[in-house]
Amino acid sequence: MDEQRIRCSDLRARVLSADEAQAYIRDGMTVAVSGFTKSGDAKAVLQALAARVQRTGDPLKINLLSGASLGETDAIAAKAGIIRSRAPYQSEPVLRNSINRGEVKYTDQHLSHTAEYVRSGCLGEIDLAIIEATAITETGGIVPTTSVGNSPIFVERAKQVIVEINVNTPAEYEGLHDIYLPAGRPNRAPIPITRPADRIGTPYIPCDPAKIIGVVFSTLADTPSSIVPADHDTQRMAEYILEFFDHEVRHGRLPNHLAPLQSGVGSVSNAVLSGLAASRFENLEIYTEVMQDAVFELFGAEKIAFASASSFTLSQRMARHVNDNLARYRDKLVLRPQEISNHPEVVRRLGVIAMNTALEVDIYGNVNSTHVNGTHMMNGIGGSGDFARNAGLTIFVTKSIAKGGRISSVVPFVPHVDHTEHDVDVLVTEQGIADVRGLAPRDRALTIIQNLAHPDYKEALLEYFKRASQHGGHTPHLLTEALRWHQRYVETGDMRVRQLAKVTG
Amino acid sequence: MDEQRIRCSDLRARVLSADEAQAYIRDGMTVAVSGFTKSGDAKAVLQALAARVQRTGDPLKINLLSGASLGETDAIAAKAGIIRSRAPYQSEPVLRNSINRGEVKYTDQHLSHTAEYVRSGCLGEIDLAIIEATAITETGGIVPTTSVGNSPIFVERAKQVIVEINVNTPAEYEGLHDIYLPAGRPNRAPIPITRPADRIGTPYIPCDPAKIIGVVFSTLADTPSSIVPADHDTQRMAEYILEFFDHEVRHGRLPNHLAPLQSGVGSVSNAVLSGLAASRFENLEIYTEVMQDAVFELFGAEKIAFASASSFTLSQRMARHVNDNLARYRDKLVLRPQEISNHPEVVRRLGVIAMNTALEVDIYGNVNSTHVNGTHMMNGIGGSGDFARNAGLTIFVTKSIAKGGRISSVVPFVPHVDHTEHDVDVLVTEQGIADVRGLAPRDRALTIIQNLAHPDYKEALLEYFKRASQHGGHTPHLLTEALRWHQRYVETGDMRVRQLAKVTG
Repeated sequence: MDEQRIRCSDLRARVLSADEAQAYIRDGMTVAVSGFTKSGDAKAVLQALAARVQRTGDPLKINLLSGASLGETDAIAAKAGIIRSRAPYQSEPVLRNSINRGEVKYTDQHLSHTAEYVRSGCLGEIDLAIIEATAITETGGIVPTTSVGNSPIFVERAKQVIVEINVNTPAEYEGLHDIYLPAGRPNRAPIPITRPADRIGTPYIPCDPAKIIGVVFSTLADTPSSIVPADHDTQRMAEYILEFFDHEVRHGRLPNHLAPLQSGVGSVSNAVLSGLAASRFENLEIYTEVMQDAVFELFGAEKIAFASASSFTLSQRMARHVNDNLARYRDKLVLRPQEISNHPEVVRRLGVIAMNTALEVDIYGNVNSTHVNGTHMMNGIGGSGDFARNAGLTIFVTKSIAKGGRISSVVPFVPHVDHTEHDVDVLVTEQGIADVRGLAPRDRALTIIQNLAHPDYKEALLEYFKRASQHGGHTPHLLTEALRWHQRYVETGDMRVRQLAKVTG
Repeated sequence: MDEQRIRCSDLRARVLSADEAQAYIRDGMTVAVSGFTKSGDAKAVLQALAARVQRTGDPLKINLLSGASLGETDAIAAKAGIIRSRAPYQSEPVLRNSINRGEVKYTDQHLSHTAEYVRSGCLGEIDLAIIEATAITETGGIVPTTSVGNSPIFVERAKQVIVEINVNTPAEYEGLHDIYLPAGRPNRAPIPITRPADRIGTPYIPCDPAKIIGVVFSTLADTPSSIVPADHDTQRMAEYILEFFDHEVRHGRLPNHLAPLQSGVGSVSNAVLSGLAASRFENLEIYTEVMQDAVFELFGAEKIAFASASSFTLSQRMARHVNDNLARYRDKLVLRPQEISNHPEVVRRLGVIAMNTALEVDIYGNVNSTHVNGTHMMNGIGGSGDFARNAGLTIFVTKSIAKGGRISSVVPFVPHVDHTEHDVDVLVTEQGIADVRGLAPRDRALTIIQNLAHPDYKEALLEYFKRASQHGGHTPHLLTEALRWHQRYVETGDMRVRQLAKVTG
């Protein structure tokens, strides 16, 4: 097996156990690992490091960079207390709690930006890259597994590299990836992608074998995605979006096969994308960062011509299906570095239709994607900004209420802004759809409140907006009340006024 | 004169007076005009329209699109009440007041986005484009004057075109412009600019002569820019930035000639750019949206190799100098469509250093560029988002206080977000410079408060942050106090607590 998995013969002598490999990691190091939304993440060495620290009590903290979220390794590392700082994304409850307690310094980044920061040197040197792989080629090239993420730039910039060969990944993964890194400036050329299917690089991450200090064999599986099936609300949201697409096609603003689709991570986005399976649309293309189950359902329904992403993030059942049917998908898929899957240049050129999930939106269309009550990190911003800012059509989806109605997802004022109203074209809840393109803020407010708010909150929103408007302004607000709904939720567990009355009256 | 200015002989019969031309404009029309930051704007026909409406009392309102701000025409049109809606930018006090009273529906857009919205059709049809020109070529091509802005897409999409030939513009303007429009999707190619000096298009705006329904001769000058000279504070800010550039060069993160520079409109940005004249840096390149006086001062100091923008916005003195010395600048300048000068693809490829002005910043680095107290529009967001999001290095500058100290420009929480902390690398006030690249929010807050805040406000900011941190979170805040500084200013005219004490105690 070693010979097929390690085709560069020099490297066969560098096979280590995970425990031997973790000994290379010392306190204060910057360690950069493969992994994007729980897929293709380097697992064995970090888990062995966490075990060592828990066993010995050695004080050790690293700066941990990745593509996006790791699977359970983020939790294991956070529990062991070995993360000093973390970037550019996370979505793991244990780690999140450490971040919100101020124990882990987390820097939330646009996912297309991290490679540029690494390249510029302003995040400091990368001491060690740990990359999960299917195989190593004759020249030391690293063939990734279920994600590419930031691995190419990490390998290029790291002083040393450890490769984790996951022997449970099919050898047929080789050929799925397309590795291309923009050159350093000022000699950078245009990225020559004009269609999602364009291949512009190599099927492996180039790596000088001399940099590879160890090869570890691993059998640890990706943490499966836990997609919640579509419910009544998400189905309605999908229906609104399909009707809207139909409307745009009829008005000549979208072609019959739409435009390349991007869909954010999560159950709502997945359900919306699934909705296309029963639609009239065909020959669709995907240009996204993550392929969730829905992408393969659409392949099953023969709706998709091609899909490009930076990772698979699949349920256990769908991961098995994909692994068993790789031959079928081989010419229809590509996995790219996240710098390319999310690159403003390509997203803008292709005119991607971007569909992402909001935590909440305000009456003018500003979106909070990340911070509960404006303070507590939920999931990072991820690629939503890369897509929302540059897409041909930018859609945000959210259910109109949460926590059984105690939270309205349409609020007077979002207490944290990830996407400004400039970057939001269309908003969707199970109540309806609001096309706010070209609308001035006061018109936008009325459209958003009327079309998107839950009936329990609509009147209060209208009343806020009307009173605010009496004071004038381009985006009228009442500064003393703008954040009161969130404050009320913090104090009483309910945004609604009558709850406040019960508590205070 | 007609023959040189109108080289397409068919069009010589279509010369109209401004008053004849304005009669083509009817109530409810969408009119799209040339003009970018008070330069190269179509003046004669709109002013004649305003005069007619004021004379006759005819009810008439148009939807007015432009490149960016018009000169005094924005004020004249607003006073006459002929603007129903306005996009994508404004910075004119009379118009601004109409917007804040809710009389004009203003849609604030990223300046690179407007052309895409027009192309997609979602802003509706353009009934008439009015374009200021130096000349019309043999084939009907329109040679712009001091700006390009959105004129190429307006001419391409408008049903009819009126050309205002400004006979006071030197014929030598011809050849300064480089007109290139990205193709419609899905057949769009990469934009082939890899250096600021690259010319990729035609020196005129292609136009079918049959679309040109009138040619008006005009002598109206651009409204001159009113740049305030550098003062002690702006000089210090320039010094901090120059020291920072030095530091980056020493650490190998910038080359000796830096990277192409973008500088926002306004006195502070102009002063910062002027500061480079006395620096050791040479062979600089400019890739920006507006060339202000400082760019020509840098040419005078032989600091600049090439400058690319979408417009000149100059003082009267500097405009005269440029017009008198066009031969000298001919090979060193280009004016492009704003879609190209501000395009994410090019800005990111070149790794532009973006320097823009903030109204205020919060402790985590979010920037408000547009809305006073979160409600009242000052100037639009302009191109700051195009550059800030995609630049290689993003700097925002602001004086630490305003209104004689009654306003702190460093606040707990900005009441309007134009640029999220993800898009902000470095912040500068006259107090100091904060390099927040790679910092987690709590570290960012301490750096921002310590380095940037005015002494009168530093303690209060630290105290807010410390109390907020006791409640945990990734970006700690106190929801009941986050907007209190702004509220206090609205109520008392001073953000400082002791003023409040006087009023309430």
